[in-house]
This record gives sequence, C-alpha cells and structure tokens, in this order.
Amino acid sequence: MSLNSIIQYFVPKDRKFFPLFEKASGNLIDLAEALNELVNTPDIEKRKKLTQDIEKLEHIGDDITHLIFLEMGKNFITPFDREDMHSLASALDDIADYIHGSAARMELYKIIDITPPIIKLAELILQGCIEVNKAIEELKNLKNIRLITDSCVRINSMENQADLIFDRAVADLFEFEDDAKTIIKYKELFAAMETATDKCEDVANVLETILVKNA
Amino acid sequence: MSLNSIIQYFVPKDRKFFPLFEKASGNLIDLAEALNELVNTPDIEKRKKLTQDIEKLEHIGDDITHLIFLEMGKNFITPFDREDMHSLASALDDIADYIHGSAARMELYKIIDITPPIIKLAELILQGCIEVNKAIEELKNLKNIRLITDSCVRINSMENQADLIFDRAVADLFEFEDDAKTIIKYKELFAAMETATDKCEDVANVLETILVKNA
Amino acid sequence: MSLNSIIQYFVPKDRKFFPLFEKASGNLIDLAEALNELVNTPDIEKRKKLTQDIEKLEHIGDDITHLIFLEMGKNFITPFDREDMHSLASALDDIADYIHGSAARMELYKIIDITPPIIKLAELILQGCIEVNKAIEELKNLKNIRLITDSCVRINSMENQADLIFDRAVADLFEFEDDAKTIIKYKELFAAMETATDKCEDVANVLETILVKNA
Repeated sequence: MSLNSIIQYFVPKDRKFFPLFEKASGNLIDLAEALNELVNTPDIEKRKKLTQDIEKLEHIGDDITHLIFLEMGKNFITPFDREDMHSLASALDDIADYIHGSAARMELYKIIDITPPIIKLAELILQGCIEVNKAIEELKNLKNIRLITDSCVRINSMENQADLIFDRAVADLFEFEDDAKTIIKYKELFAAMETATDKCEDVANVLETILVKNA
Repeated sequence: MSLNSIIQYFVPKDRKFFPLFEKASGNLIDLAEALNELVNTPDIEKRKKLTQDIEKLEHIGDDITHLIFLEMGKNFITPFDREDMHSLASALDDIADYIHGSAARMELYKIIDITPPIIKLAELILQGCIEVNKAIEELKNLKNIRLITDSCVRINSMENQADLIFDRAVADLFEFEDDAKTIIKYKELFAAMETATDKCEDVANVLETILVKNA
Repeated sequence: MSLNSIIQYFVPKDRKFFPLFEKASGNLIDLAEALNELVNTPDIEKRKKLTQDIEKLEHIGDDITHLIFLEMGKNFITPFDREDMHSLASALDDIADYIHGSAARMELYKIIDITPPIIKLAELILQGCIEVNKAIEELKNLKNIRLITDSCVRINSMENQADLIFDRAVADLFEFEDDAKTIIKYKELFAAMETATDKCEDVANVLETILVKNA
C-alpha cells in the first residue's frame, strides 16, 4: 500500500460521499420538476412520457443510493456517523419513491382530472426538494449551519402546509364527491404526495441530528 | 467563563432535560383528557371548543419538543444517549400529533355519531398517556426501574387491546354499515386513534432501550 | 463468582443470541408456510384452523422477541451493536405481525374468494422468509458475507415484485370491482401482505448495516 493510497483511504471521504448525496438531492429536483410538469399538462400522451421519465429518474436515484451504501462499506472513516448517513440516504431514496409512487398511482388508477390540491401538493414537493438540495450542498462545509437550519425550518413549514392541504382535500372529497371509488383513488394519491413531503421532513430531522452531533 | 457557568454546563443537564420531558408527557395527559371529554359530550358547540383546545395543546407540545432539541444542541453532555433522547422526544410529539389528528378528523369529516369503539379507544389513549407520564417521571432517578418496566408492560397491554378494538370495529363497519363513505371516514378515525396507541408503545420501546443501556 | 461463570458472562453470548434469532427466523418460515396453506385451501374449516395456528405461531414469535430483549438486558457484551440487534429483533417481529395480520383480516373481513394476487403475495412472503432465515443463519460466522448479501439482494427483488403485484392488484380492483366495500376489504388485505414484504426488506437493511460495521 503506497502512502498515497493510505492518504486516499483516510482523507478524502468527503470528496466521495458529498458528491453522491448532492447527486441524490439534485435528482430529487429533477423528479419533482417532472411531477409538476405532469400535473400541469392536459396532454395525455405527454403525461405518459413524463411518468416514464419519472420512473427512469427513480431508478437513477436507486443507483445513487446503492453507491452510497457501497462507499460506506468500503470506507472506514465517514464524514458523519454511519447511522446518520444511512438514514439520510434512505430518506432521500424515500422521497424519490413517493414522487414516483404519486405519478404511478395517477397512471394506474387512471386519474385524468387533476384537481387543485394535486397541483398544490406537487408545488410543495418541489419546494421541499429544492430546500433539501440546498441543505445537502451546505453539508460539506459545516460553517454555514444557519443556512442548513433555515432550510430545515422551511421544509417543516412546507410539510405543515401539505398536511393542511391533505386534510382539506380529503374532507372535500367526503363533502362533494359521491362515488366511493373516486374518493378512494384520490385519497390514495393525496396520501402518496403528502408522504413525499413527510419524507422531506425526515431528511430535515436527520440533518438536525447531524448538526447537533457536529456543532 | 466563571467556574459556576462551567459547572452549570456540565452538571445539571438533568435539571434541564427531565422537566422538559415531564412537561411533554404531562401535556399528553391534558390532550388525552380533552379527547375523552370531546367523545363523551353530545354538545356540538362544546365539541368545537374542545377541538380548539386540543389544537392549542398540540402547539404547546410542539414548543416543548423544540425546546428539548434546542437543549440537546446546547448541552455537550446529556443524561442519556442523544439518539434515545431524540427518539423519546419524537415519540412523545407523535402521540400529541395523533391525538390532535383524531380530533381534527372528527371535525373535518363531520363525524357526529360517536360510536362505542371511539369512546373505548379514547379511554385506552388516556390510560397510555398516564402510564407514559408515570414512566417519564421515574426516568430522572433510575432507581425505580421496576416502576418504569411495569408502566411499559401496561402500555404494551393497552396497545394490544387497542389493536383488537380497532380490528373488531373495522370488521363491524364492513358487516353493518352499507355506506362506503361512512366506512372510510370511521376507518380513518379509528386508524388515527389506534396509531396514537402505537406511538405510546414506541415510547415504551425507547424507554426499554434506555433502561438496557443504563442498567 | 467462579472463573467459569465469568467466562460464561463474557464469552458465549453468541451461543445465546444467535439461536434465538434463528428461532425467530425459523418461526417466520412456519408462519409463511401456514399462510400459503391458508390461501390455497378452499376448505373453510381448515382455513379457520390455519388462522388459529398462525395466531399461535405469532405468540411464539412474541415470546422469542421478548427473550432476545431480556438477554440484551442481561449481557454486557453483545455480538453486534445493541441498536442493530434491537432493530433486527423488531423487524423479525414485525414480519410475524403482518403475516398474522393478513390471515386475521381474511377472517375478520370474511374474505372467502382468494384471488391470484393474494396467492402470489403469499408465495413472495414465503420466499422472503426463507431468505431472511438463510441470512440469519449465516450471521454467526461472518465469513460467508457473500451469502448474506446474496440473500439481501433476493429479498429486495422479492419486495420489488410484491410492490408491482400490489399496485396492479389495486388498479384492477378499481377497474373491475364495483362494490366499494369489497374494494376496501381487498385493498386492506393486499396492504397487510405487501407490508410483510416491506418488513423483510427492513431485515435486509439491518443486516447490511451490521455487515458494513463488522466488515
């Protein structure tokens, strides 16, 4: 083992891990943007294409998550506690899963009529992913802790808004929709979208745990 | 930094953390009592008022949770492992969320007819919160470990009962209720209440983890 | 304290913990086999009997989980990190709960007509439990890490298949079933079965965490 490879081994883990986390959070922005495009186009063919794009992006996310886990196996020293890096990678992966799940349900359940709460939830998911990405980009130099906590605060506020919209949307279904099948379908879609925002909050929680430990 | 403030910093973390956890668990009893009052009054105006009270209590709970996280950021030494304190604070917060969620669903879904399983689940939630509070109060002096494990056993038994009531209540909905919308509404309400008891069990699990580590 | 009992205390924890974990994972195979028998017999009386068997097996699982937690309290040294052993025992217990929950829902909701996705999900659950058991048996000598990671890969692939079957099955309910009550019942059953496969994936995730730490 050369001195170089020893240094390789002990020093630049940050250069390995941080770009992977940034790839994962950057991919979330692509996913959330595709979801927003999907819920804002009336063109059924274009929707189909966007749903396929979202599926591809979700696979890319899976590959990035897998690489992070592989790197954790290979590196003795990691920039943060292993369990926190594991939780962070999992939470980022979960966001991708629920964005994909939202798009998949629209297609599977043949939901054609995109209602205002769907559009609003998609917007909130995008906001959440942008803040998640910002916070992740600040992780590598923990000097701007304030920027990370600010993003966490905005993520929490976004999640609260999504909760309210979800509650109102379900209540409105009960009030104004008489077909039980339609109620169940939309409720499932709202739930997938709302869970995507919950997973953004999970990311914020892991980030706060990392900050507490490394402050 | 005076000697006093150094001692401040290193010694009396128990005096800071334990009162906050006790506030959080005491607040849960207030929440559970308000929920029981809510499901036992036929007066619609009084129900509205109690739902607002529950919302306020939930905000108080949020503030306490936030204070616990702040203190963890400021204190180098904590009475237990940070991750366990984090999990404990989160689980206490989750109980408050689901009690509030139960009350909110009754109002949002305009559930007027309070059926026996709703009343029984509210009772079990209160029992659970009382045991959670007892166990938390014993945490500061880990000499009465038996009292804590006894509370944990009672919490687990309460959660098992809630599971059975939930299962039976949903089966009865399918058997005796023909309106699908009504089935979905009540099922959602039962689920929120049952999840509140699951979160009590989460608290018991964290407490057991803390005991295992500090035995 | 004799020298013998001191050695007892420090050395052979592996001989205590591993057999318990193997009992838990072996019990899962019994549970999954009973579930498969249940969904493949048209005989209502035999189904009733198998549902009772599953309930008994689930209680056995609870007892094993409890023993693992007891041993963790008694043993200062554990073969892996306490939190990982805790997560592993909990995830194994969760699989048992959801297999039992699936059988219980069939009985409670009076689901008589066993459809193809139910049979397929039961098969996948059995495959998952067999892989979980294989991986657990390899844990005691971490020399065959490859065998464990191979099982984890197969568990993840099984879980992906279960996801697809779940999505398709729910979409088909919306497409071909008009009775909302029937839709809700089957959807709940599919969800319990699909969650059992999620919990197998949780086991795989804990195992990967253990491998990462002990590699």
